[in-house]
Amino acid sequence: MVVARDGSSSPLEESNGTTIPLSNLSYDSFVNVDRGDPVGFRKFWEKLSEEAKVEIKGDEVMSYFGDKNLCWYMLPQMRNAILRLHKVVGNANTEDKYIVLGTGSSHLYLSLLYALSSQKPSHIPFNVVAAAPHYSEYEGPVNILQSKLFQWSGDASVYDKDEPYIELVTSPNNPDGTIRTPVVKSDAEGNVVYDLAYYWPQYTPINHELNQDIMLFTFSKCTGHAGSRIGWALVKDIEIAKKMVLFLHLSSIGVSKESQVRAAKIIEVICDGHENSKSTPSDRLFFEYSKEMMKERWEKLKAAVEQSKVFTLPKYPSAYCHFTKEISEQYPAFAWLKSVEGIEDAESYLEKLKILTRGGKQFGVDAAYVRISMIGTDDEFIELCTRLENAKIE
Amino acid sequence: MVVARDGSSSPLEESNGTTIPLSNLSYDSFVNVDRGDPVGFRKFWEKLSEEAKVEIKGDEVMSYFGDKNLCWYMLPQMRNAILRLHKVVGNANTEDKYIVLGTGSSHLYLSLLYALSSQKPSHIPFNVVAAAPHYSEYEGPVNILQSKLFQWSGDASVYDKDEPYIELVTSPNNPDGTIRTPVVKSDAEGNVVYDLAYYWPQYTPINHELNQDIMLFTFSKCTGHAGSRIGWALVKDIEIAKKMVLFLHLSSIGVSKESQVRAAKIIEVICDGHENSKSTPSDRLFFEYSKEMMKERWEKLKAAVEQSKVFTLPKYPSAYCHFTKEISEQYPAFAWLKSVEGIEDAESYLEKLKILTRGGKQFGVDAAYVRISMIGTDDEFIELCTRLENAKIE
Repeated sequence: MVVARDGSSSPLEESNGTTIPLSNLSYDSFVNVDRGDPVGFRKFWEKLSEEAKVEIKGDEVMSYFGDKNLCWYMLPQMRNAILRLHKVVGNANTEDKYIVLGTGSSHLYLSLLYALSSQKPSHIPFNVVAAAPHYSEYEGPVNILQSKLFQWSGDASVYDKDEPYIELVTSPNNPDGTIRTPVVKSDAEGNVVYDLAYYWPQYTPINHELNQDIMLFTFSKCTGHAGSRIGWALVKDIEIAKKMVLFLHLSSIGVSKESQVRAAKIIEVICDGHENSKSTPSDRLFFEYSKEMMKERWEKLKAAVEQSKVFTLPKYPSAYCHFTKEISEQYPAFAWLKSVEGIEDAESYLEKLKILTRGGKQFGVDAAYVRISMIGTDDEFIELCTRLENAKIE
Repeated sequence: MVVARDGSSSPLEESNGTTIPLSNLSYDSFVNVDRGDPVGFRKFWEKLSEEAKVEIKGDEVMSYFGDKNLCWYMLPQMRNAILRLHKVVGNANTEDKYIVLGTGSSHLYLSLLYALSSQKPSHIPFNVVAAAPHYSEYEGPVNILQSKLFQWSGDASVYDKDEPYIELVTSPNNPDGTIRTPVVKSDAEGNVVYDLAYYWPQYTPINHELNQDIMLFTFSKCTGHAGSRIGWALVKDIEIAKKMVLFLHLSSIGVSKESQVRAAKIIEVICDGHENSKSTPSDRLFFEYSKEMMKERWEKLKAAVEQSKVFTLPKYPSAYCHFTKEISEQYPAFAWLKSVEGIEDAESYLEKLKILTRGGKQFGVDAAYVRISMIGTDDEFIELCTRLENAKIE
């Protein structure tokens, strides 16, 4: 989608760790690849529109309560869908873990900051760190809450305080797609949170069944249903899981039941397909279709970037994927472009070409970098490639 | 519903401002009227089960985005439904107001604490106050966040600091059903937040179209659909509304689209009925049915309480309701019982009768009081009345 920059279809962008509504500038035809709205997967769901349909009657899912487990607002079918999905994909070990459901993984992130830091009141404030470049929206929520429990402390790779910390490990990483492990070298008390939003077969080979103590997932980036605001955490320690549930109770009394009904259905359709992959056409297998889409887009983007000679892209190693049973490259949800010498501010450079991106500074690195969404609409993506091809050093 | 107290169907209860999971006690047949789960309205929706049904196809509402307005994640039909509902009921003036949608009104409450206190960084921390008895879950979220921006300061009626404050005015009040106005007498900088969760015709005569600067509503207590986690704020000041939206963006990237689709449909069915009330049977008019239900329950409860002579109930004035066009009593969502002399801890007393309630101390008053939900299931309510009738002073 090529959108107008009028404060409407792109109302928020981030700057200096806080997010502010756009002013009412009105100039047309901006390609907005700043946001990570995963609507590129909609074409798949159009084909399965009826099959993945849910009906919710007037008297259904009215209660606050859902389940008889620790996460008391979770519906049984939501829990079962999460367990089944991880089993089918093989990306995370769910055994001996508590599932905590959140209104997207942002909400779970906040609940974790509370859960981890409040466990040790004598150690507060905990320092929240992530290796740069890191997700641009880790810092904003920490700053907005102004909690005495935790504080943003920036790049994990240079963290050297002798104070308790929470390290966020996003793998594959947003924005740069790299596979990550913890980097903090401090001997202080530390907790690691694995944000695995992109550890799905369309983005990266699934070469390990991860089994970390705290793992975060989001429905948005897995299936493309960002509007549902469903995320989940797999948590080993019951005390941490209880504190997360308490936070989610006090801040929103749980998570939408309608979204849970919907997410469970969508996941069921995906799993039904892949569990019967021999009798299902490949364009109706979600991870096959979406991986193919990502692969095609990456090939187009690479060609456009090579032609322009203004930017470079990271190189990713290939790996064996236990899910697809083949050796494969990575096709990250975002492209991480670095401008060549002579262009110091890549975001401003691209803005002149009417391409809206998110600049490196928002990810804790320099302005030579920009992040570009690879999961928007086809129109948007094609127009992006055309404009990139025509980019020239002035 | 008569439930087992086994940590499953009543997993959370509050104590000293924090909420903790119940231990795994296992004794049967407790009537749980501690919680305000509004499932008593389900019988109405069973009749309109098909009429109020929503269908969401696999490819619908996938984006983060919803609308072209300030609250960018709100769907147009959600906005229109809110405006229409207030017009039909006449309880709040929506003109010149911004609508901010939240994951229930708890989430909006937090967003408001941020929005109001961060406006004046030189004045922090703001003191959050509410006249006792006040809603038991105002304090917990403030304490859990441990923000430098605001702090819980208890009973508004005794607030006398010369420091900025936020006064929460719940009207009709939870727990005691009284109609409230602000009570803080301090000359300090103050903001008033009206929590109007119960300002609907089934609970109280709608005798004014309220037109306050900040008004909070929740879908849960209006229609009985607590599982949807939909709340909204009507806010006059655009800067406050923007800050609320920013908070909701950073903490959960908006609100479930499925819940919005559902809530819009439920509200549409209610409004269709009442706008065509002459041609609609009264048992298919939501506010007529639900008011009758509340009235019947209150009559039964009053009879049971009078018979036992162990408790007293508040007396409520009658008033003219512009919506029903008749003079009517109040039928609050909670009964606020005070024990007679000799019973100092009403909650413990009722627990012995296997009735789980929420004691006065959680609402900032003494233990002679308890709150009892009037909006649970029929079974639960009937059993409650039977047990109350048999209550005797030991």
